[in-house]
Amino acid sequence: MDKIEKIRTPALLINLAALRNNAESMIERACWHSLKLRPHVKTHKTLEGARYQLGDRFHAITVSTLAEARFYADAGYKDMTYAVPISPDKLDEAAYFTKNLDHFGILLDNPDIFEKVEAYALQNDVTFEVWVPVDTGNHREGVDPLSYDAIALVHQIFNSDVANFKGILSHAGHAYSCKSAAEIQNVAEDERSIMVVFANKLRRNNIACPAVSVGSTPTCVHGKYWEGITEIRPGNYIFFDLYMTSIGVCQHEDCAATVLTRVIGHYPKGNRMLIDAGALALSKDRGPIHINPDPGYGYIKENPNLKIHGLSQEHGFVSCQIQIDFKQYPIGSLLHIIPNHSCLTAALFPEYHVVEGDTVIDQWKPVRGW
Amino acid sequence: MDKIEKIRTPALLINLAALRNNAESMIERACWHSLKLRPHVKTHKTLEGARYQLGDRFHAITVSTLAEARFYADAGYKDMTYAVPISPDKLDEAAYFTKNLDHFGILLDNPDIFEKVEAYALQNDVTFEVWVPVDTGNHREGVDPLSYDAIALVHQIFNSDVANFKGILSHAGHAYSCKSAAEIQNVAEDERSIMVVFANKLRRNNIACPAVSVGSTPTCVHGKYWEGITEIRPGNYIFFDLYMTSIGVCQHEDCAATVLTRVIGHYPKGNRMLIDAGALALSKDRGPIHINPDPGYGYIKENPNLKIHGLSQEHGFVSCQIQIDFKQYPIGSLLHIIPNHSCLTAALFPEYHVVEGDTVIDQWKPVRGW
Repeated sequence: MDKIEKIRTPALLINLAALRNNAESMIERACWHSLKLRPHVKTHKTLEGARYQLGDRFHAITVSTLAEARFYADAGYKDMTYAVPISPDKLDEAAYFTKNLDHFGILLDNPDIFEKVEAYALQNDVTFEVWVPVDTGNHREGVDPLSYDAIALVHQIFNSDVANFKGILSHAGHAYSCKSAAEIQNVAEDERSIMVVFANKLRRNNIACPAVSVGSTPTCVHGKYWEGITEIRPGNYIFFDLYMTSIGVCQHEDCAATVLTRVIGHYPKGNRMLIDAGALALSKDRGPIHINPDPGYGYIKENPNLKIHGLSQEHGFVSCQIQIDFKQYPIGSLLHIIPNHSCLTAALFPEYHVVEGDTVIDQWKPVRGW
Repeated sequence: MDKIEKIRTPALLINLAALRNNAESMIERACWHSLKLRPHVKTHKTLEGARYQLGDRFHAITVSTLAEARFYADAGYKDMTYAVPISPDKLDEAAYFTKNLDHFGILLDNPDIFEKVEAYALQNDVTFEVWVPVDTGNHREGVDPLSYDAIALVHQIFNSDVANFKGILSHAGHAYSCKSAAEIQNVAEDERSIMVVFANKLRRNNIACPAVSVGSTPTCVHGKYWEGITEIRPGNYIFFDLYMTSIGVCQHEDCAATVLTRVIGHYPKGNRMLIDAGALALSKDRGPIHINPDPGYGYIKENPNLKIHGLSQEHGFVSCQIQIDFKQYPIGSLLHIIPNHSCLTAALFPEYHVVEGDTVIDQWKPVRGW
């Protein structure tokens, strides 16, 4: 097995011990609260990562692209939710998965689209499994749970001959705007209560609502009350990142994905260094700017005083508020960077190097594209 | 040939007519000023794109990764400059290319590294072709042209038995901070004069400086005076993007790369739509924030009043200062987005769809990784 010194940089390293710990903690949390864990695979997009996320207790996954659906279906996964609102152009493929897997859930929050989905289903002899996303405050997708239209849409789906209404689903992405565990707990409890109230409203309207699914790493880590929730769909926790550290969801040592980079330039006059991780290795995600308006582009584990203050395509610009001791960082020396946002960073790498300490023990190949 | 309606979105479309026009304009400009065009291929990373950039007048390229070097070497390219400062870990591969290609230039701005490169070269019987980058104000890589150390380093390289000093090279990345063609012309003239003064200083020190290479799309488009410059290395111009449009380097219709996306959600209450191009399709590059502090994440050609005000991994959030006419954008309908920064956006796509009008006429596969 190679040492990391042999790796072409930049590279994405996976600390297997941290990843396993993150995965097992979420499995335990789900089991403890009697929740079904349907982990999101979008953060890593690998077969190996999903295996750790599921353990031997769970089997269903959440995907963010049809490319992921294909990849995991080919590997034998039989139960997945495609957690992006469906559009008519994607129905052929959705129908294929619906027919060939045990469960393939689609998301639908619009009555016009539901008409098109119904027409398609009738014509193509398929019964879609439909989840209705609910906007619990994130203002991304979802019906307004206070609106009459929301009930009407679910009613229409529930009564359709070519749709199985699977349940309601939310993503409390606004938990990312929190600054502490206490704030995240409030968002989680808001989300839970909005979802449970809406599910009960459906039931009072004679609509069976078998599943109530929520998900976001911060709320799944810090949520205290789970009554009425049946399923969670977190994803980022498998790697965590600087963002999650900054809002109090994890510690630096929990961050399982780091970018390995090398120093490639010394500029003592400007008290600057260059590294070979640029925007194509770190992504230009700015991280938790609501906590620190200028956090830079990642956390250099070897010396948190160093700041990645800028990126060009293949260069990272490193500065420091105190004098850099350049002898500590000879050109060619390695640095480990916790990325601001591991989902976007990991997506930039054609493969991940899995490490135990300084030894590469495996390589994982993620799926890409759409 | 398929129509674009058949493409899975998000997708990267290349308008071949615009690309060809961009390529030919730069070739003409180089020929007119008797400059060698050594285009940077980092923006597209395809064989087809390089062919258009070079035309039948030029043959040498600039690469930003060793993966690009491998890819183009395998395709028969024999003359390239690897335009990122070399570090010791990359010498094995650099030596391989040096021995197997006609020309493989490396960048070196540090005397300690030059010592290591010399030791390596002696041990491995290779003579490296070395370019010395000069910092003309961008403060990325490069020697300080006013320093004695800069002359001393070039002297050392020039006199070495295991290095061929090829010339000096700069990248006026600070031209990106300009707001107009006139400002860019000033940066270009500053760069030219700094480089020519430094080259002449080397010559007065009995160092032959055969090549003086500069490059950046803005300065190569707007630079007026080229005396003393021998080579240009622009890259972004092949696609252009919203950034280049905003600083006056091109027009919207010159932008050859657009992200094709579909509307996947309507939220009239919030006057919002969702599209299926998220951060993994557009990149989180914020664009020309020195001109517009909140430009959003791209320019929707169908309606520039629409603003992509946020991105999650696979969702784009579209809003508008006036009421959106949702009937104009039914769910599933297509939108074309000029990205903020085409280099980072293109790098997210496993393939590009080349179009003439609404017809896909080709697919190009870029090289990825490092």
